[in-house]
Amino acid sequence: MGNTDSVKNVSVLGSTGSIGQSTLEIISHLKESFHVVGLSAGRNKELLYKQIIDFEPDIVSLSSEKEADELKRMKFDHRVIIRCGQEGAEEVAGYPKNDIIISAITGINGLKPTIAAVRSGKRVGLANKESMVAAGALINKEAAESGAEVIPVDSEHSGVFQCLHKGNIKEVKKVILTASGGPFFHLNQRDIKNQSVEDALDHPRWSMGKKISIDSATMMNKGLELIEAKWLFNLPPEKLDVLIHPQSIVHSLVEMRDGSVLAQLSLTDMKIPIQFALTYPRRKESALPSLDLSEVGTLDFYKADLDKFPLLRLAFKALRKEQYFSIAVNASNESAVRAFLKRKISFSDIWDLVIEVTEETKKMEIKTVKDILILDQETRDRTLNKIKQRY
Amino acid sequence: MGNTDSVKNVSVLGSTGSIGQSTLEIISHLKESFHVVGLSAGRNKELLYKQIIDFEPDIVSLSSEKEADELKRMKFDHRVIIRCGQEGAEEVAGYPKNDIIISAITGINGLKPTIAAVRSGKRVGLANKESMVAAGALINKEAAESGAEVIPVDSEHSGVFQCLHKGNIKEVKKVILTASGGPFFHLNQRDIKNQSVEDALDHPRWSMGKKISIDSATMMNKGLELIEAKWLFNLPPEKLDVLIHPQSIVHSLVEMRDGSVLAQLSLTDMKIPIQFALTYPRRKESALPSLDLSEVGTLDFYKADLDKFPLLRLAFKALRKEQYFSIAVNASNESAVRAFLKRKISFSDIWDLVIEVTEETKKMEIKTVKDILILDQETRDRTLNKIKQRY
Repeated sequence: MGNTDSVKNVSVLGSTGSIGQSTLEIISHLKESFHVVGLSAGRNKELLYKQIIDFEPDIVSLSSEKEADELKRMKFDHRVIIRCGQEGAEEVAGYPKNDIIISAITGINGLKPTIAAVRSGKRVGLANKESMVAAGALINKEAAESGAEVIPVDSEHSGVFQCLHKGNIKEVKKVILTASGGPFFHLNQRDIKNQSVEDALDHPRWSMGKKISIDSATMMNKGLELIEAKWLFNLPPEKLDVLIHPQSIVHSLVEMRDGSVLAQLSLTDMKIPIQFALTYPRRKESALPSLDLSEVGTLDFYKADLDKFPLLRLAFKALRKEQYFSIAVNASNESAVRAFLKRKISFSDIWDLVIEVTEETKKMEIKTVKDILILDQETRDRTLNKIKQRY
Repeated sequence: MGNTDSVKNVSVLGSTGSIGQSTLEIISHLKESFHVVGLSAGRNKELLYKQIIDFEPDIVSLSSEKEADELKRMKFDHRVIIRCGQEGAEEVAGYPKNDIIISAITGINGLKPTIAAVRSGKRVGLANKESMVAAGALINKEAAESGAEVIPVDSEHSGVFQCLHKGNIKEVKKVILTASGGPFFHLNQRDIKNQSVEDALDHPRWSMGKKISIDSATMMNKGLELIEAKWLFNLPPEKLDVLIHPQSIVHSLVEMRDGSVLAQLSLTDMKIPIQFALTYPRRKESALPSLDLSEVGTLDFYKADLDKFPLLRLAFKALRKEQYFSIAVNASNESAVRAFLKRKISFSDIWDLVIEVTEETKKMEIKTVKDILILDQETRDRTLNKIKQRY
């Protein structure tokens, strides 16, 4: 393209996951603008090896020490620092040469690396939902201190960010996230209760990991996104809402106080919000086809039924509660979903458990990452104990 | 509201028309922010009198000298300068105390006052479509010289303006204006030809004046909006398109080059774009109800059929032609629509005439307002002559 922008250095946390791979694909299309300096992966040593060859980062990290040692014995054409464990991921996150960190580690494991990225004061493209859900106040505080710029990397929040575009949040009347409604949107309250793992994994719009597919079927996913939006955009609970939109073309809507509504639409491709987080405030060409609404034809919208999806109701409650409540929602849900995927509990047991565990959680003040991780672990233990006792 | 903004002085050109009255209604709700200093009206002396009592402007203007003289003999509690004719409207437009001028005179009569407003270097809320269609290049040149800020006041262009929000126009792949399709959208090409005046005036979504209702039925209205958008946003022809959207909830869409689409939606109420032009870049509360998409339920989108609506095809052609062509389109259309409303010609005669007259217009360079007005008049005369000879 021959523009005169300086090249930005990018580190990708969770580089072998779905978002991580898409990020690297975008960067290989936008080589004149972005350069990979750091990669952090979980256990997929083979893919990380290939990524090291392709992108020649300065520093990489793997979860286990053993696999990191094996990687060290492999040959590379350039010098690469190899680290391991959470500390390794944090070192990649805080690598001084970074201009942008894409935080895409799944689950609560992403929290500490995300905080390390935010503390570095750089741009953080945030795909790790759990960070904002469990530690929104803390992350916002750290970002305010370091000057980090947190840009959401998922379709709904990126859509909101694009519609707001530095607008005054006081002028916003309502932020609405759309939800496809998941595979059980058309079922009634009774039939939804005993859906199988296979049915729950069969998402109509997005091809996703197992955990997020189940969260989509219970609509917990949209609930977590609501909580994330509260912290990302500093919104009071009454300004947040959800709308069912089965076609998943409109990702979010921002209603301004003058009655005008701005919406963001696109084909369902995670590459759009990832690329936006990299190029913001500019936009660069993408290889995606155009959205043709005359081909889509119809966009439908429905109210969300909170009786059918009790975890969405719980999320709305979490918006009004302190941080401890969201930590408990997220942790108990992760444990319950895992048990459902192992066929230890039924589909409706997920919400029965999550609601029970969360409501039993004692109110406590959350000040540090340690506070979060302790409550997170304690909640998981409580959830697993209940499962062991009952099922 | 008790904010600390300074009060802005507003003049309204066309104050007794539909947009003018809505503007004054908004200002009376936002008294702490806006003050009326000038009003220019056509023939509705009684309504102007009432507006003078209510808003106490410094200066007003009426079309005819006789009516202006009658107004001078009426009693007011404050001093008001009373002017008449096009010069009077231009004096209101250029009144030195103005901060914002809402240009809402209908038809080509609005051109000179609009140019006077743009020359003053203030903010111009532009509701007079014909100005941009007939004089886009000239108005942009004047605005660049004076520093005037032209903000569109109609739903579609205001929507585009809101989506772009100072964004880089080079990053825009396509700007799409939606059209309700008018009352004849569901008819086939043959049946559309002989629709009556009554049928053509029966618009499904917007309650509008007669001229604009007919333009909506022929889709010339959307064509003129396309030409307007070309000049307002400096867009090449290939970046402009139209999409039929019968619900008229989505007013426009802006597709960015990264595949993301921003759209502006609202209830069909002109008060939203008018208020936005006044308050931009801020937004203030409005008394309008919220748009509830779950109540609307479904949004439909279709391709526009250029065989059914030949004037829309002509407008697309005008995008690629020089200014003279658009002046001819607009002038011949005004004459033909008037003849149709007087039942002198059939519905399909409108486009047959407009296409014939426009295509016969000799290419000429347009440099001044005078050039525009001469070609405008010459085109009207030619159109009327054809009507007299044939019908």
